[in-house]
Formats: sequence, C-alpha cells, structure tokens
Amino acid sequence: MNESAILHYPESKYCFALAPKTVCLRLRISREDAPEEVKVVYGGKYSFALQRKTALMIRKYEDRLFAYYTATLQLEDSRLVYVFSLKDNGREYFFSEDGLSEQYDFQLSYYNCFQYAYVNCADVMQPVKWIDSACFYQIFVDRFCVGNRQKDLSYVNMQWGGAPTPQSFAGGDLQGVTEKLDYLKDLGINVLYLTPIFKSVSNHKYDISDYYSIDQAFGGNQAFRTLVKEAHSRNVKIVLDAVFNHCSENLLQFQDFLKNGKNSPYYDWFIFSKEDPTEYECFAACKYMPKFNTSNEAVQKFLLDVAVYWIREFEIDGWRLDVSDEVSHDFWRAFRKRVKEEKADCVLIGENWHDANCYLNGDQFDGIMNYAFTKACLDFYAYEKFSPKQMSDKLNEILMRNTDTVNSMMLNLLDSHDTDRFFTRVNGNVNKLMSALALNFFFVGAPCVYYGTEIAMEGGYDPDNRRCMDWKKAEETPPVKLLIKKLANLKSGGEFFGEISVSEESELLILRREKYVLVINQSGKARQYVAKKAVCSNEYSEQILLDGGFILHEKN
Amino acid sequence: MNESAILHYPESKYCFALAPKTVCLRLRISREDAPEEVKVVYGGKYSFALQRKTALMIRKYEDRLFAYYTATLQLEDSRLVYVFSLKDNGREYFFSEDGLSEQYDFQLSYYNCFQYAYVNCADVMQPVKWIDSACFYQIFVDRFCVGNRQKDLSYVNMQWGGAPTPQSFAGGDLQGVTEKLDYLKDLGINVLYLTPIFKSVSNHKYDISDYYSIDQAFGGNQAFRTLVKEAHSRNVKIVLDAVFNHCSENLLQFQDFLKNGKNSPYYDWFIFSKEDPTEYECFAACKYMPKFNTSNEAVQKFLLDVAVYWIREFEIDGWRLDVSDEVSHDFWRAFRKRVKEEKADCVLIGENWHDANCYLNGDQFDGIMNYAFTKACLDFYAYEKFSPKQMSDKLNEILMRNTDTVNSMMLNLLDSHDTDRFFTRVNGNVNKLMSALALNFFFVGAPCVYYGTEIAMEGGYDPDNRRCMDWKKAEETPPVKLLIKKLANLKSGGEFFGEISVSEESELLILRREKYVLVINQSGKARQYVAKKAVCSNEYSEQILLDGGFILHEKN
Repeated sequence: MNESAILHYPESKYCFALAPKTVCLRLRISREDAPEEVKVVYGGKYSFALQRKTALMIRKYEDRLFAYYTATLQLEDSRLVYVFSLKDNGREYFFSEDGLSEQYDFQLSYYNCFQYAYVNCADVMQPVKWIDSACFYQIFVDRFCVGNRQKDLSYVNMQWGGAPTPQSFAGGDLQGVTEKLDYLKDLGINVLYLTPIFKSVSNHKYDISDYYSIDQAFGGNQAFRTLVKEAHSRNVKIVLDAVFNHCSENLLQFQDFLKNGKNSPYYDWFIFSKEDPTEYECFAACKYMPKFNTSNEAVQKFLLDVAVYWIREFEIDGWRLDVSDEVSHDFWRAFRKRVKEEKADCVLIGENWHDANCYLNGDQFDGIMNYAFTKACLDFYAYEKFSPKQMSDKLNEILMRNTDTVNSMMLNLLDSHDTDRFFTRVNGNVNKLMSALALNFFFVGAPCVYYGTEIAMEGGYDPDNRRCMDWKKAEETPPVKLLIKKLANLKSGGEFFGEISVSEESELLILRREKYVLVINQSGKARQYVAKKAVCSNEYSEQILLDGGFILHEKN
Repeated sequence: MNESAILHYPESKYCFALAPKTVCLRLRISREDAPEEVKVVYGGKYSFALQRKTALMIRKYEDRLFAYYTATLQLEDSRLVYVFSLKDNGREYFFSEDGLSEQYDFQLSYYNCFQYAYVNCADVMQPVKWIDSACFYQIFVDRFCVGNRQKDLSYVNMQWGGAPTPQSFAGGDLQGVTEKLDYLKDLGINVLYLTPIFKSVSNHKYDISDYYSIDQAFGGNQAFRTLVKEAHSRNVKIVLDAVFNHCSENLLQFQDFLKNGKNSPYYDWFIFSKEDPTEYECFAACKYMPKFNTSNEAVQKFLLDVAVYWIREFEIDGWRLDVSDEVSHDFWRAFRKRVKEEKADCVLIGENWHDANCYLNGDQFDGIMNYAFTKACLDFYAYEKFSPKQMSDKLNEILMRNTDTVNSMMLNLLDSHDTDRFFTRVNGNVNKLMSALALNFFFVGAPCVYYGTEIAMEGGYDPDNRRCMDWKKAEETPPVKLLIKKLANLKSGGEFFGEISVSEESELLILRREKYVLVINQSGKARQYVAKKAVCSNEYSEQILLDGGFILHEKN
C-alpha cells in the first residue's frame, strides 16, 4: 500500500456529524490500492480499551489519485473514538494518528486513536431543507426586463439588445422581474438570485452607497416589496447579493472620512495606509470601491444590521456573499450567528472560486458558488481537456472537498455575470449546453441558471456576458428551454435525491442517484447504450447514444 | 515523484499569516522524493496572470513519510495567490488545486491556483508574548504544601507522605503554594498551573459546586488573592483550571433541576435523555459530574462571566481548559472572544490529547497540553519503541500538526495528574528523566514540570501520581533539580529562541535552535561527540557522549 496516500483528519470533511449520534467517516487511500477489507474499529471514548465495534467501509468515490472509503455510524453515545483496519494481502494494518502499523495497542489508544470527542448540537451543521429542491436563476437586473416604462428613463443609454459596455444602462428593473415571475415559474425556477439592487451609480451596483435603499432606477423599496410578495405567493424564493467586502465611495461614512480625515468617526471603518492616510484598501484596484474594515466592531454591527434588516423587513430567503473570500472569517462567523438566529433556513452562499473548506465547517457559509464545477464543465465540454474518465475523477475530487452536508448546499453553475457564457465557450453547440445542463441539475447541490441560458444566449467576458434578455426568443420554446423545464420539474419535485456516484464506463460519464441514472457521451463516438424509461435525452435512439448526447433515465 | 504524498491546503497549517503581509507556506511531499528545486510562484490576486514572483522553498522538516518545504513571504499586498513549482529530473511540475501538471495556464489561474484571498487582521492569530520564556509548574494543590495549620484540619484523612486513595485529603492549600513561591522562583519557574481550586467536595475539585468561591480548605478567595499578589510580585504568573465541560451535582442550578424537573429554569442547562428525563449526560460515567449544555446561551453566559471574573477581579494570566475536546467549538469561539477582549495575553491551553488542529486555527485555543509529545517521550525513553531516527521523525510530525504560532504556545509535558509519573515509567532512571527534561525545555513551546519532578518523585496511575510533595528532599539539591534550574534559567532568559530543527545523525537525536544544539544519546552505545561550550549535560566527557547522556551546548 502507498502509505503516503492515506489521509484522515477528525472533525473535518473526513469525519463529520449529521446529528449528535450520527457520524460520517471517510478514509482516503491511493486509488491504486485495493485492500480486501477496510473497516473502522470504534467505541466510546472511555470504554474503547475494553469494548469495540466494527463497521465495514465502502469504496464510494474515486478521483485521479485517490479512493475514498465511507461509513456512517449510528452511535449509542455522542463520544466517538476510532482507528481504521485495512486488510491487504492477508495482513491487517491499523491506521491511527500515528500512521499505519501492524500492531495497535488499544490499552494506550487514548494517546493516538482518532476521536470526535463529543458531538455537541451547536457544532452540527444544519442543512437548509429547501435547497434540496431548489432551482436557482441568476438575474442581472438592468438587463433582464424593463417593467416600469413610466419612470424617468433618462439614465438609459443603450438600446435593448445592443452591445453593452461597462457604463451601459438598459433600464431593467424589479417590476420587470415581477412581471416575468410566471415565465420563470413556468420554466421551473423556484429561487431567484439577483445581483445587487441597492442604491448605486453603476449598472452592476457592486458599489453600494445606501444599504437600506433599493436603487430608484430599479423601483425603490416598494418595487422590491412587491417582488418578494409576488414571488413568495408563487413559492419562489429570493436571494440577494451581500456586498460586504467593500462599498461605494459615495457611502456617507466614507464621505465623512474624506471630509474629516482622522477626526471622522468612520476613520476606522476603512483600511488606510499608515504611511499615507489618503491611501486606502479597495476592491481590486477600484478606488471607487473602498474596502470595509470588517475587523472593526462598528462595521460588523452596521453590516449585520443590514443583513438582518432585509430578512426581517422584506423576508428574503438568502444572501449570496460577494468577494466573501476577502472578508474575515471572524466577520462571517458573527454574520452566520446573527442571520441564522433571525431565520434558520436563510441560505448563505459564498463567492469563493477556490477550495473554501475553511469557510465551510458549519461556522460560516452553507455553500459556495461552485466554480470548480464550472471549470470542470469547461474542461470537459469546452476545452476538451477532460476525457469522461478525467471528468469523473474531477467531479469525485470536487465532492471530496467538503462534507455531504455542504455538498448538498453548493450552488453549481455553468456561468455567471463574472465568466464568459458557457454557450459561447462551447462555440454555440446546443448539444453540449444541454448535456451540461443535465449534469448541472443532476449533480449534488443546487443548479443555478444564468438568465438567458434557456434561450441559448451568447456572451463573452464582462460586459458581453450581461446582454439584454431577448423576450421575443423567450416566448418561443427552443429545446434548451424545454430541457430546463423538464430538469427543473424533476429537481424541484425532489426526484434527484440520495447519494451520488460518478464513474466512467466504456468512455461514458455515468452519474447515479437513488432513482435515476444520467449517461453522458462526450467520447467522440456513438455508443451502444440501452436505457429503459428514459426521462430526457438529446440525440438519443433506443440502442445508440450519439456523440454529444445524454440520457437521463430511471433506474430499472 | 509520489504525487499522492503531496499535500497543501490554503489557510491552514500549510498556509498561515504571521501578519497581514507576512505569510508562511508549507508544502508536504514524500520524504523519498528529492526534487532539485521547490519554489512558490506567487503574486497579487488581481495581477497573477501578468506579474509573478518566485521564492525558494527550503526542506526543513522530515517525518517518517514526508518532507516539508517552507517559505515565508513578505507581501506588498494582503491578497496572495500562488502555485508551487517542483523541478525533478530536469522537468518542471506545477502543483495547484488541480494537482500536479507539467503545464500551468496562468491566464486561467483564477480557477485553480491556491490563494489566501485577503489576510484580515482579525484572522491573524496573535501569539501570547510571555509564553516564549514561560516555565510552567503544575501543582495538585491538596498534595503540595500545607500552609495554614490553624485551619480546621478535620477533613484531612491521610498522613503527609502516605499512599493516596481517590478519597484522600492531605491538607495542601494556597497558603502553602504562596509559602513555596521563593522555592519555585529559585527553581526557575515563572508560571504556576494549579489544578482546580474552586469549591468542591473532592480532593481534585474537578466537580465544582461554586465557580465564584475558592474552596475553604484551600483558604478561600482571600488566600488566592494573596497568592496572585505574591506570585505577580515575583513575576510568576498564575494559570487556573477551567472546568467548563461539567460541574458538580451540588451546583445550585443542577440541584434546582433535580427539585423542579422540567419546571426548573435550569432544565436546559444540562443534557437530558428524551426518553428518561432523570437521565443526563455527565463526564465519563461520573453521575456526580453533570455535563453542561454549552449550546445553551444562558450556560455560555454563566461560564463566560466566570472566565472573565477571575481575570478581572483576580488578574489571573491564563486558563487551562479541562476536557476541552468535549465542549463545543461554538462555546470556545465565544470564550476566546470574551477572554481576549478582557486580557489579550491571557493564555488558553486546551486539554486535548489528540491532534487538535480544528481547535487551533486562531478562533479557539492558543495551544494544548501536548500529550503527543508526552507519548513520543515515553516511546523513546520508556518503552524503547523509538530509535533516535524514529524519535526525530515523530517530533517533526508533531511540529507539522499545527502552525508555528500555535507550536510556540504548546504546553509540552512529560507527565501530569492524569498519567503515570514519567520517572516511574522510565523505571527510576535519572539519566533518562534528565535527558527528557532537557528535550522538554529545549523543544518549541512551553515546558510544564509536574510538581515533584525536581526531586524525582515516583508515582503510578491516579491516585498514585498525586502523592504528597516531599519537602525534606526538596531542600536538598539533587541533580534533577539542578538541571531544571539551569534549563529554566536558559528558557526564561529567552535563550531558546528561533526555529527548531530536529534530526538524527549517527544515531544521536539532535535538536538545533538559533543559539544552541541539544544532542541526546539513547542509542545504547557510547558515541564520539565533541561539543564546544557545553551548557549542561549528564554523563558527559569532552570526547565521548555516554549512552543515556545528553549535551546542550552553544553553537560554535
């Protein structure tokens, strides 16, 4: 065995509680190793020397380098200690904190066994129940739909459908979103994620100058109240963008500093250079977006009050956390506490493009925008860097980055206002887009459809990825739209449940959950494949799965 | 290269900040691999595609399986992104979130490079400065010294020096500790860690019935006030035992529950079985020690108020956290915030016998009682399971469990009131005890001497490890005592500073820090060894290091 490949950490993604007496364990070993048997030997913290149980571990996930064995233990006591036992070539090895050994002294196990010393309720991450059937739809409000044509439209400086620039205003607003709720509902959508809507001079509104006012161009607070009411009446939830890393230079507090310098009561709200007090930290290199000093308690209070206000007064259902990786963990811990106290099932989705495990241990976010999933889909469908086998390996690797609880709350996306449109990356190949959507909806977590995907909208990088929605096209029923409807109805109907297994078989990418199997053929060749009770597919005939095709079918 | 052995996690013990612009990186690879060059390629989060720097990484630690390369980066910006570059057999490999590859696309690095997106002040773990020169001494108060002979001694049921039982009371008290401050100061001690001293019916007092009163048998609050005052006037700090996992069944709140059941306002303070409301969780199987429900806010407030009270009113310098692994992370996070707000350099030492990394990321403890170090010393000196090579490997492995900041605050101990005495485990071999003490004082972290070690006290498992201090012997100057004085003076004088390297050379265990080298011979053979300017040693001659001997000497 390749001992260096073996990995386990207690109280981590390798050992996490679903309830005070239910603990999931994962053990990572080299994929090339295939021990005859992998077990966990476990017991109570104060009785392990005398009394032990064993449970078989199952090889459930395989990525490029590693295989992962899992077991879910039902405990009599909330105190768990354990070591692993691996039988390889007829020999038994124990794996403890001290590594692999052929002998293990259970009498001295209190020094080096693994443990989850006591599963305290407060530390068990609670899943947001509604996310299991959530189908998100991301809207860039200025480009989605103009609802109020009576308002002062003088700020609009582009024609609907024209090529957007970073300074373009197209006039979309919240009344427009409200008007399209039935359209979205028909599409199968049940959660809207809106890019920022608070007062701001920009079209994207990531530079907020008043956290308590919806931008007037978007219809003000009243238009938002109407949107939430109408959405909720259709069982559609609303998630807003929390821009808490930075603000606009127009924020009163920042203006006060500019005027009064060190004498401003808001001096500590921002992060100034010691050498030059007019130099301050900002988002990226954007001086018009000063970074908040979230280590300052007054700033924490200000932002947490904002977070709670929109939940309490407007009943929003979640926050997407902008540039969350640049805000302190300390802030997010306080934030989660306040928000979850106010509304336990308010979902918190971080914008972290990278492995964010240190934000996802139950004390900060519920999930993140799963850009690792995005990248995998690009490598598989667009860049053709991944064979089905490599795609299977990567998806397994992504699943093993976090606990099952977190995985169920990941926001899986093909694209967003921050990337090229997926459809453009696959060179307008509708088959690929549809196959990727099937994968997106079937994967563990919540799918998020960027507005216009249903009409196969094109778009390069910002600002081209923020084109105006084409409502004429949307009235038609293109195949992508029909597919999203089908997938969204299955997802929101709770049909895609249970653990996932992802594998490659005969160059097909195969994903299995409790009731369904998704088969994806990106092998470059047609493949013999017989599926019973196909639920949806493209380029499908009963015997042959064409290249670029997929079948989602019920398990036999 | 063994790719499966390569490990790196951002914002972890593999990537931690010492200051907003100072970040330490570690990269783990297989010990068997020896790439020609290991570098980190790094840059700013928003400029990495265009502008990059490189820094050489140094192979600094080696354990049984792995080698660890480290680099400390001084950044211009608080946003760090990076990948590793390894040159092996003339080829360059990149290591990113996507693993090892010969190509790396810096244009798409925002998807899969490593990052510490922004080092926020609030997340940088601050070391407790005074611990660098701390020499702890652990006192089991009932067995240390009887100071007040005027008090009612009717509770004393054993003769000083007799064999203790679990129910023995020998009469030791805080006045006794105060009287021995000059003795301890002379020994070189500058921190006292006292096992619990609050009101309790037991001799160990881990079952507390009043968190605001020092036990009368120990002299009450006044005796403690005197002790702190006298200790502080000698620059000796006081660390108390925080028993916050459980209490005594005599605690008023628990008694109220027993009387009023579900109607008690304290019903939620404990953890009751749903089936049988008279069944409650307790410490181990000790029904007289009911476990607190630290998920309850009222309990949190009660215990946090206690923690702050003794800091504010009695100026204690730290808390040792009893059974800290069974208390919720959520509680410890709140605890750290409150305590550090009250006194930033109040040290927090958890009682975690196992890898406690998930408590040691800056949001909970400063360090833990380093029982992994204890076990290593037992395996090396007592059980003779470890060769010098294996001991070097293990010490390196222990160092790699946590960040450098945490390592500097570990409480390294050979024994405690919860283990056999080390001297007994090495069968009364004074050479071994002295060698282990040299290691204990020289290692990174703070040494903790269990009372009586200086007079080579014997003792098996509890209650035998809690014998009465022999003050007659203590007046003599046995070699162990002289050694502790020497080591403690060096340690408290700040002589043992800088990074440590631990290695095996010619069957000698060799530890190096900035100014000194410690050489330990447990090889079973005499070894040629020439050291200049030896500071202390046993069984030493200028040319030969006898078996069982050690030399601590200044670097040439």
